[in-house]
Amino acid sequence: MTYNQLVKQIQKKRSYLCVGLDTDIEKIPKHVRKEPDAIFKFNMKIIDATKDYCVAYKINTAFYEALGLKGWKAMEKTVKYIPSTHFKIADAKRGDIGNTSAQYAKAFFETMSFDAVTVAPYMGEDSIRPFLEYDNKWTIILGLTSNKGSNDFEMQKLTEGKYLYEKVLQECSKWGSKDNMMFVVGATQASEFATIRKIIPDNFLLVPGVGAQGGSLEEVSQYGMTKDCGLLVNASRAVIYASAKKDFAEKAGEMAMQYQDEMSSLLS
Amino acid sequence: MTYNQLVKQIQKKRSYLCVGLDTDIEKIPKHVRKEPDAIFKFNMKIIDATKDYCVAYKINTAFYEALGLKGWKAMEKTVKYIPSTHFKIADAKRGDIGNTSAQYAKAFFETMSFDAVTVAPYMGEDSIRPFLEYDNKWTIILGLTSNKGSNDFEMQKLTEGKYLYEKVLQECSKWGSKDNMMFVVGATQASEFATIRKIIPDNFLLVPGVGAQGGSLEEVSQYGMTKDCGLLVNASRAVIYASAKKDFAEKAGEMAMQYQDEMSSLLS
Repeated sequence: MTYNQLVKQIQKKRSYLCVGLDTDIEKIPKHVRKEPDAIFKFNMKIIDATKDYCVAYKINTAFYEALGLKGWKAMEKTVKYIPSTHFKIADAKRGDIGNTSAQYAKAFFETMSFDAVTVAPYMGEDSIRPFLEYDNKWTIILGLTSNKGSNDFEMQKLTEGKYLYEKVLQECSKWGSKDNMMFVVGATQASEFATIRKIIPDNFLLVPGVGAQGGSLEEVSQYGMTKDCGLLVNASRAVIYASAKKDFAEKAGEMAMQYQDEMSSLLS
Repeated sequence: MTYNQLVKQIQKKRSYLCVGLDTDIEKIPKHVRKEPDAIFKFNMKIIDATKDYCVAYKINTAFYEALGLKGWKAMEKTVKYIPSTHFKIADAKRGDIGNTSAQYAKAFFETMSFDAVTVAPYMGEDSIRPFLEYDNKWTIILGLTSNKGSNDFEMQKLTEGKYLYEKVLQECSKWGSKDNMMFVVGATQASEFATIRKIIPDNFLLVPGVGAQGGSLEEVSQYGMTKDCGLLVNASRAVIYASAKKDFAEKAGEMAMQYQDEMSSLLS
């Protein structure tokens, strides 16, 4: 998916919601858990119920890997099931030396048909380059994350005066463009959004941390939005576990619609 | 596997070699490539030929993920095939917010029976803690890697006077102990080994970069070794692709034996 196609979807739906499929077998409704292929079936129903209100889906690979082979299979089937109108993110936090990153890029961009993969920047440029070599595919680099541990290293001050995460945004943004690179910035970091937009005025931000983690959609939108929106705000648990009963899909749809409704106002 | 069990294996074999199973379908001998289950068959033969000369195997998950479901299956079969006398590392470079890292830990420590998993430290303490909660399992944190990109962020100087990677070693080593935490330090960074040993005198180091990447085993051993050895030196391509012909396993065995022979001298 291209930058313009993504922006068009956002404008059409008046939504910049990304639904996070962190599908945990322990947390899905009991009646679904018993079915064969339970994870995929749950995802199908969530996708059917939410697709009109979101522009992206984010698959958190950890939850699928935890189930081994059958989890990986459920992931492959889920990616295929997501409509081509939606931006498909592998939230995989990969990154390794060049020849290994090339294999990860192959896994997510060729073997599966994700549009984007999240990447950890610690190992530097040659660990990120292989992901950028694909046309119309996206690399989403960890900038400032939503968790408490972001203080440990991301917020360390460098002698050149910046925080580490600012250096990451600044350097990485030179290796790609707004057309193939996004950054993860947690919604819990609203006070930093203005600074971030000075460093990367045009790149899309993937923003987790709204919902279960407590970030504010309004603040994120106020300080992070660009003229093309420039935001994909993710909600996982708040949407997919909106109900643990038979009505789980319906409730997930309602929750996604609430986000879309709020986003529609914030876009004006 | 415990610290003492690992040290005992090293003393018994007079080797601290880790063989890296970065098994690439494009690079294995043509006659194996044609077989069904080629990756697993190649790994089996490599393991049979090298197990007497090494104490650990490291599976680079990227190469398996690139093949999708059948790659993941080959990984699961390979882990099971590695003898229980050997330390089994998932070189996965994972790391995410707490509830997600817990799923990665489950994937590698429960669903598969790895002894250790490599973890990227960028997201800080709560991204690493879930891996440390398992008894007799190991977290191997990226410290100073062997690639050129290590200069981009790992070697950034912090206002408190340290390099970022030194801060990572110092902080992370507080969260675990020599009994459950190792660090990745590239063999190409020999000049930093003395500094590293001042910060973490007792933790094992997993050292890639000998062989194809050009690091020196002698230098690494001179500056990095502790009284219990404290090193696992990895060789991947140099061993597993020692020959592309029918004799690939035999040649891999010979190469592993050469490393073991050199290591035996360096241990004295």
